[in-house]
Amino acid sequence: MGPHPAVAAIRLAVRRVLHDVLTHHHAQGRHDPPLVLVACSGGADSMALASALAFEAPKLGVRAGGVTVDHGLQGGSDLRAAEVALRLRALRLDPVETLTVEVGRDGGPEAAARDARYAALDAAAERHGAAAVLLGHTRDDQAETVLLGLARGSGTRSLSGMAATSGTDGRYRRPFLDVDRQTARKACLMQSLPVWDDPHNNDPAYTRSRLRHEGLPALEKALGKGVVEALARTAQLSRDDADALDAWAAAAEAAVFDDAGTMDIAALYALPPAVRRRVLRRAVIAAGSPAGSLFARHIEEVDRLITAWRGQGAINLPGRVGVRRQGGRLVIRQG
Amino acid sequence: MGPHPAVAAIRLAVRRVLHDVLTHHHAQGRHDPPLVLVACSGGADSMALASALAFEAPKLGVRAGGVTVDHGLQGGSDLRAAEVALRLRALRLDPVETLTVEVGRDGGPEAAARDARYAALDAAAERHGAAAVLLGHTRDDQAETVLLGLARGSGTRSLSGMAATSGTDGRYRRPFLDVDRQTARKACLMQSLPVWDDPHNNDPAYTRSRLRHEGLPALEKALGKGVVEALARTAQLSRDDADALDAWAAAAEAAVFDDAGTMDIAALYALPPAVRRRVLRRAVIAAGSPAGSLFARHIEEVDRLITAWRGQGAINLPGRVGVRRQGGRLVIRQG
Repeated sequence: MGPHPAVAAIRLAVRRVLHDVLTHHHAQGRHDPPLVLVACSGGADSMALASALAFEAPKLGVRAGGVTVDHGLQGGSDLRAAEVALRLRALRLDPVETLTVEVGRDGGPEAAARDARYAALDAAAERHGAAAVLLGHTRDDQAETVLLGLARGSGTRSLSGMAATSGTDGRYRRPFLDVDRQTARKACLMQSLPVWDDPHNNDPAYTRSRLRHEGLPALEKALGKGVVEALARTAQLSRDDADALDAWAAAAEAAVFDDAGTMDIAALYALPPAVRRRVLRRAVIAAGSPAGSLFARHIEEVDRLITAWRGQGAINLPGRVGVRRQGGRLVIRQG
Repeated sequence: MGPHPAVAAIRLAVRRVLHDVLTHHHAQGRHDPPLVLVACSGGADSMALASALAFEAPKLGVRAGGVTVDHGLQGGSDLRAAEVALRLRALRLDPVETLTVEVGRDGGPEAAARDARYAALDAAAERHGAAAVLLGHTRDDQAETVLLGLARGSGTRSLSGMAATSGTDGRYRRPFLDVDRQTARKACLMQSLPVWDDPHNNDPAYTRSRLRHEGLPALEKALGKGVVEALARTAQLSRDDADALDAWAAAAEAAVFDDAGTMDIAALYALPPAVRRRVLRRAVIAAGSPAGSLFARHIEEVDRLITAWRGQGAINLPGRVGVRRQGGRLVIRQG
């Protein structure tokens, strides 16, 4: 008798990623067994991931280890992390390490925790020479991420969710982006793996939690059960679209700049609006405007210097970057 | 004392569109006053639109008329239509006409009513020689349309909502895509215009109604008040992105086809995935597959003939279109 379908599903998802990791490892001329780490919070998603990694890695000649991050945000989080580490060792993962981080305040509690977590994961991957770090984000997480991007209203890139592969050298891998949360939970149950429910996941103070418990269920009620799947598919399609348009913009950029670093208005005008706006955004960021403070409305204002010229003055953008039209040229300067 | 801000807002929105209609009219070498029709259901959005058209048109040398559609779906709908026509005449619109349509069943009740409505509006525009037909869709309608597209999960084009200008010769104009529903309602109130609340708008049997009364409010509660605006902005950005990528695909298509009507696998492989999928979709539709039955998963399956070739057989698509790989060529045939 084979494993329960949920267990089979999580193992297949991990197996595919391990095959890919091995291919890349060999392509680098390395013949030692690569080390793959799982980042595990003790929740159902990442415990399922850890269990699947522990099962599949030995069969493929991959070394499997695990890390858990203690964010120090709740009393007893150190004990919690120690317990998760014990469970990872019980799965015969090795090495297993607890990463203690200090969470700052930049960008709000969720962003600060995320930044601290990834910095610690990066350092751990370097320290252990890991070929990959597996993250337990599911299709449901992906759907939530797309809706969060939608709320920013800043276009296709912001709808592209999380990448299956990201980080330095494609270090981070998300094998469960096509696996739903229910499957991960079921797989833990069928393998008698105890899981921990992070109270943050149910705290209405967090946007993502409100989305999970109120926003998405209401959308499903209005639009039907396929919403999560549709959002996840939107992420993939949007990512590919954004990549193609970014490539076009990079190529177009070279053609509109002159030696003095100003841009030719006529050449910009001839580009499709979607490409022109990307060229402008790239140029403004290159001039020193911080990407995170630069919104669609800023770029639209710059775009009007080209498409709706009626003698406007200089446009002032975040990071003390100014854009003005001078004759047939667009001049972008910081200062 | 100027008009109430809501009244000023709807008039400005209409004035901008009338300027544009005039510019196009003159560009065609015509110097007679153009006729602009408003399509009015009697609801707040289109009554506000009718009132703004009636106010602005005479000042710009534009003739203003109105039509209302009797869908014949509810008892007394003919009386309702006659009443709306009276109100349009009271605004001094001329001509005013009631269009009686027969709603079929194709594609569900909402789609069938829409198809019948646009066919009648097209015919009326032709009959009266109208330069434009104004439609009262608001920013809220746009947000709902984006969410409906999101539920289809078919990518950037389906997120692009309604166009500000659409139809034959850009006949249809939507001046209120940046005006919210509340403003239109307020403008009617301030002008003492009676409005009719279509019971369909509150009928939970309709997807759009569920979205309006449950889905969107829940999303706003989770994500904050800017959701409608973010969705409307997403529509515009997505439309521009989809246009640019379609243009790229059209150019790329010419380069991958040979005289025998088959496509070069190597050339297809070299395209960014987003462009390649669009080229494939265009080719499959050109071979006879109906666009409406063709989903992202179909195109993904065809794409795997190029990117993940392991000897697959022919892919069967809606409309009896088959796609197979033959040597270095992709062969698409109906039959």
